[in-house]
Amino acid sequence: MGGVPSSAFASDNAAPAHPLVLEALNRVNDGPAPSYGDDPVTAHAVDAIRAAFDSPDADVLFAFTGTAANIIALASAVRPWHEIFCSDVAHVLVDEAGGPVRLSGAQLTRLASADGLITPQELERRVLGRSAVHHSQPRIVSVTQSTENGRVWTAAALREFVDCAHNLGLLVHIDGARIANAIAALGVSPLEAIGDADIVSVGGTKNGMLFGDAVLVRRPEQFDGIRFVQKQIGHLASKHRFIAAQFTALFDDGLWLRNAAHANAMARRLSTGLEALGLQLAAPAESNEIFVKLDAHSHRGLAEHYLAHQPDVGVPVVRFVCSWSTTEAEVDDALAVLRTLV
Amino acid sequence: MGGVPSSAFASDNAAPAHPLVLEALNRVNDGPAPSYGDDPVTAHAVDAIRAAFDSPDADVLFAFTGTAANIIALASAVRPWHEIFCSDVAHVLVDEAGGPVRLSGAQLTRLASADGLITPQELERRVLGRSAVHHSQPRIVSVTQSTENGRVWTAAALREFVDCAHNLGLLVHIDGARIANAIAALGVSPLEAIGDADIVSVGGTKNGMLFGDAVLVRRPEQFDGIRFVQKQIGHLASKHRFIAAQFTALFDDGLWLRNAAHANAMARRLSTGLEALGLQLAAPAESNEIFVKLDAHSHRGLAEHYLAHQPDVGVPVVRFVCSWSTTEAEVDDALAVLRTLV
Amino acid sequence: MGGVPSSAFASDNAAPAHPLVLEALNRVNDGPAPSYGDDPVTAHAVDAIRAAFDSPDADVLFAFTGTAANIIALASAVRPWHEIFCSDVAHVLVDEAGGPVRLSGAQLTRLASADGLITPQELERRVLGRSAVHHSQPRIVSVTQSTENGRVWTAAALREFVDCAHNLGLLVHIDGARIANAIAALGVSPLEAIGDADIVSVGGTKNGMLFGDAVLVRRPEQFDGIRFVQKQIGHLASKHRFIAAQFTALFDDGLWLRNAAHANAMARRLSTGLEALGLQLAAPAESNEIFVKLDAHSHRGLAEHYLAHQPDVGVPVVRFVCSWSTTEAEVDDALAVLRTLV
Amino acid sequence: MGGVPSSAFASDNAAPAHPLVLEALNRVNDGPAPSYGDDPVTAHAVDAIRAAFDSPDADVLFAFTGTAANIIALASAVRPWHEIFCSDVAHVLVDEAGGPVRLSGAQLTRLASADGLITPQELERRVLGRSAVHHSQPRIVSVTQSTENGRVWTAAALREFVDCAHNLGLLVHIDGARIANAIAALGVSPLEAIGDADIVSVGGTKNGMLFGDAVLVRRPEQFDGIRFVQKQIGHLASKHRFIAAQFTALFDDGLWLRNAAHANAMARRLSTGLEALGLQLAAPAESNEIFVKLDAHSHRGLAEHYLAHQPDVGVPVVRFVCSWSTTEAEVDDALAVLRTLV
Repeated sequence: MGGVPSSAFASDNAAPAHPLVLEALNRVNDGPAPSYGDDPVTAHAVDAIRAAFDSPDADVLFAFTGTAANIIALASAVRPWHEIFCSDVAHVLVDEAGGPVRLSGAQLTRLASADGLITPQELERRVLGRSAVHHSQPRIVSVTQSTENGRVWTAAALREFVDCAHNLGLLVHIDGARIANAIAALGVSPLEAIGDADIVSVGGTKNGMLFGDAVLVRRPEQFDGIRFVQKQIGHLASKHRFIAAQFTALFDDGLWLRNAAHANAMARRLSTGLEALGLQLAAPAESNEIFVKLDAHSHRGLAEHYLAHQPDVGVPVVRFVCSWSTTEAEVDDALAVLRTLV
Repeated sequence: MGGVPSSAFASDNAAPAHPLVLEALNRVNDGPAPSYGDDPVTAHAVDAIRAAFDSPDADVLFAFTGTAANIIALASAVRPWHEIFCSDVAHVLVDEAGGPVRLSGAQLTRLASADGLITPQELERRVLGRSAVHHSQPRIVSVTQSTENGRVWTAAALREFVDCAHNLGLLVHIDGARIANAIAALGVSPLEAIGDADIVSVGGTKNGMLFGDAVLVRRPEQFDGIRFVQKQIGHLASKHRFIAAQFTALFDDGLWLRNAAHANAMARRLSTGLEALGLQLAAPAESNEIFVKLDAHSHRGLAEHYLAHQPDVGVPVVRFVCSWSTTEAEVDDALAVLRTLV
Repeated sequence: MGGVPSSAFASDNAAPAHPLVLEALNRVNDGPAPSYGDDPVTAHAVDAIRAAFDSPDADVLFAFTGTAANIIALASAVRPWHEIFCSDVAHVLVDEAGGPVRLSGAQLTRLASADGLITPQELERRVLGRSAVHHSQPRIVSVTQSTENGRVWTAAALREFVDCAHNLGLLVHIDGARIANAIAALGVSPLEAIGDADIVSVGGTKNGMLFGDAVLVRRPEQFDGIRFVQKQIGHLASKHRFIAAQFTALFDDGLWLRNAAHANAMARRLSTGLEALGLQLAAPAESNEIFVKLDAHSHRGLAEHYLAHQPDVGVPVVRFVCSWSTTEAEVDDALAVLRTLV
Repeated sequence: MGGVPSSAFASDNAAPAHPLVLEALNRVNDGPAPSYGDDPVTAHAVDAIRAAFDSPDADVLFAFTGTAANIIALASAVRPWHEIFCSDVAHVLVDEAGGPVRLSGAQLTRLASADGLITPQELERRVLGRSAVHHSQPRIVSVTQSTENGRVWTAAALREFVDCAHNLGLLVHIDGARIANAIAALGVSPLEAIGDADIVSVGGTKNGMLFGDAVLVRRPEQFDGIRFVQKQIGHLASKHRFIAAQFTALFDDGLWLRNAAHANAMARRLSTGLEALGLQLAAPAESNEIFVKLDAHSHRGLAEHYLAHQPDVGVPVVRFVCSWSTTEAEVDDALAVLRTLV
């Protein structure tokens, strides 16, 4: 607990790569291979992801980051007079430096939400009455599963929302940077956890890979230029097997869901411990992110031991994220630190 | 009152051009002249606008429409990782088909407002805490004077808001499509009506011209590529004298403010009449736009005689706009029609 | 011939507006009218242009400038991974400050040409072999009729070129800022002068209007978002009748072609006179633009009397442009000035 | 030599990763670390690259691909009214699907070249005379070292070209996807091999990494928003140590130059052998890419054994690329195959 503060809870992207992922990299590093995805490692990974989401007709692309996966999905769905919708805490709105807007040229409209969960009524209210040439034309809505604030859409709520969007003529994107955590938390099939969404960013980076997120294009005819967008922003890997092999490691025998279940379990251990200390959670603890209200004194004290992110300037809330690599000992140690402070 | 419904109150852009404007066009139509603004008619018009706003060091550009003036101002203020702010009813957000976003590549963030009037607190709340590379960088806020809902910023309120924005490191744009109506309503100098804004769209179209709005660039060093943006979207007129002469007609002897004062007076006559009929205004009547609550029956009946705009689908509010050409007879006739309906 | 040099030959956009155009403006300036093109003046003008080009199913839009007409046409034809082709002297490449690239996001590839006339072979050479995801995808070629260097495509040559483009899977745009001059020069129908092009910018500004160019969309299904592009760059006029009426003045009784024929005749008188002086033309004189080789001494001397454009820095070529308003006296006076210099 | 044809010479990105690179990944995969580059592995890699290029004040960023490195460099140098120059065979022009144009919004103008080598005269010819608002404004020129056709700029030629560009007021970008091959071929210092260029894409992918190219920003004040561009196109890695560690493996003890020297030596062995077979090279063999003229029969026969890229449709030229992993046996085997065909 001395010296440099630990990044253990700073984010799930502070975690190392899972050993099996590195092992897969070592395994495919064998002689020359065709570039840009024309290799058997890629074909295998693509099939594994299609199978996991029970989407045999889907197109699957890889990108190096979740931001890129989101941009590729959104920018290929719209033309510059379209309108994109998302929640007020969406990563695509808040944490991608405006990339989705820059690449699409389209307006990005925030919807009110409960920690990222949006009601169909809110969507309808913002979409209706935009038919004239004077207005941006509603085209796609992006929701995050699990949300940036750690909430999980139930299968029923997501399905209702997606139906509403489809009835309004909108496409649906799911930012699934933490989709595995949502699936593990819900105990449903991957397909149920994404509803009937048209396109999904499938997170790999935060779930044990070195880097890499996939785009699952469930209705390819709606995203016809998507491979050009991928190429144009530099996310068509030349040595493609090295991103594919990482996905294979995750998807071939369910490691992605085991990793997520572990992260969720560590988060539950942490949230239970925090509440036992009398601390108040700022959002329901439903996946691998915990938000806790912490006064300035406690936050400062904690920061000597653990980097923990304060999402909003001036608001006394601190975020803990657990990952596949978080240990019970780390959780218990963090709780021990906090016990001395509150 | 029979046959085709009149456009008299549909918008101030349904009005014809003022006779003195057409007269000015006829006057300058005399032999060849240098193109693209290198002509004496343009030099004269530019000086007249600078003088009107007491801004001798300002740069002045012309555009054919108010949408273009706004886009030129905003797109030259930002780079694609910047963030633009405006009210939730702003023309640049709602009625320009996403043009400001397309041209700037920057995120456009709506602020809560009272019919377009924004508090400094709301601005501060949205701007603070955006310093990291993950976020769009706040750069400029656009306010409308008078607002899209007919409200007028007082000189004091605007000054306070502009000071707040400047303290936050933001530039300020004023969408002045109806700036003359605001000046006439406030009874202050043009400069007071724009506060210390950095750049102003100065409306001409809605105030008696055939078409044409100006951009008053009060801090040219902040908008260094502005003439390229103007050119790139096709708003550098080749036969430039024909846009300049219209501005000369408006600005040389104060016609712009007389036109606006007349429009405001007609709107006042109308709002007084509406209230006398027991109707309820949906927003305070402060300039030349009147919003009145009208049930569906009355709206349908009115529509047989007058085109009147319903700003939001399903909301029983109707907008009347008076212009330089609106007559007392038209106002009284519209009131007479309504009297038979309510 | 003393004092300020005349702009008579600087460009056809140095000319005034034709009196019948101004007369039309005065005529339609009568009471309120629906905005944004929902007025009978617009309907009439649209029909007149469709009829002139024998294109009854075409969509017709108006823009304030030729640059805007070109951008609207090109930007609505492509997505950002497409490629646009044009000649090495094209206005869209050289004189629009990069607007077509900015708005489309697409690569603009120049083709070698003889003063703007491109061979089918050159087009084929640049288009073949671009199918992979690594390359921009060829989509549209823009040609100018008459060209920026005063050449005219014969109906046969244009037809062959357009067929070649269509066989390559490309759309064809014609920049017709001076289409009337080409039609008058060729003595063919307007439709023959545009071949089977898919979209045409129809010049008005240089042919007697104050400002205004039309976009004739002959295959609307290929340009589905075109009205949004028009709106997004601020070229949907609110007081639409004032642009439409100008087109009516030109197209209702053939004034556009009479204006062009006059300009061509003046150019012929000028080129004949120049050659009689022993001067050498830099390009064949086929429409209303004349390019003549002139040494530095003569150019300086001429410039005291007439503004005449030097297209390329350091190259001793001067451009004369004749317009609907050029007089025989002006031509003869310019020749007299030159006689004293060469 | 049977079964699936080998990718050995298809491209240097068909090669596997160097074992020391993978070893470095395994080594840094140890517990949590700060994200987004705030980790000691990154600090170390950045310093190593600065030192290698003797550029202590440079900023260094990482991207996942060479296309991204080029886009980040070019898009942060320009605003949308600027003009970018490059050779007619440049990767940024031909092989990035228009990404540099899409992201910058700026015109990209090709210059004539000898296999990618451009003369100062050609640059001057294209840049002069573009000062007016009607034209794109020249801003940056990109050259490739070694070129896409395997040529190498001598230190003197590059220095002369860069001086010319700077005198014209242009910035200089070097696409150094194969900069190590150029350095090794020239036998000069890395700094000499990049002249006084302002910004350099430093290739890693083709030189033994899994993926990753760096951007060396030698004049950071000219590229002020560069980290936002990197973020906006999804190239700010969250688990940043995993890209940094690969660079460390290459740069810490000169592996990058040993890898390149080996690739060059294999290419020399191949070109010598090809010429001994009586085949004619299509471009001088100066680095690790060999272009050989091959008739259709021989190309088909070769393709049964080795994937070899045909750069232009219909032109009988085939490209061989050697990498750090190419063996003498592979070279000799390819030559043996060809001996049976020619």
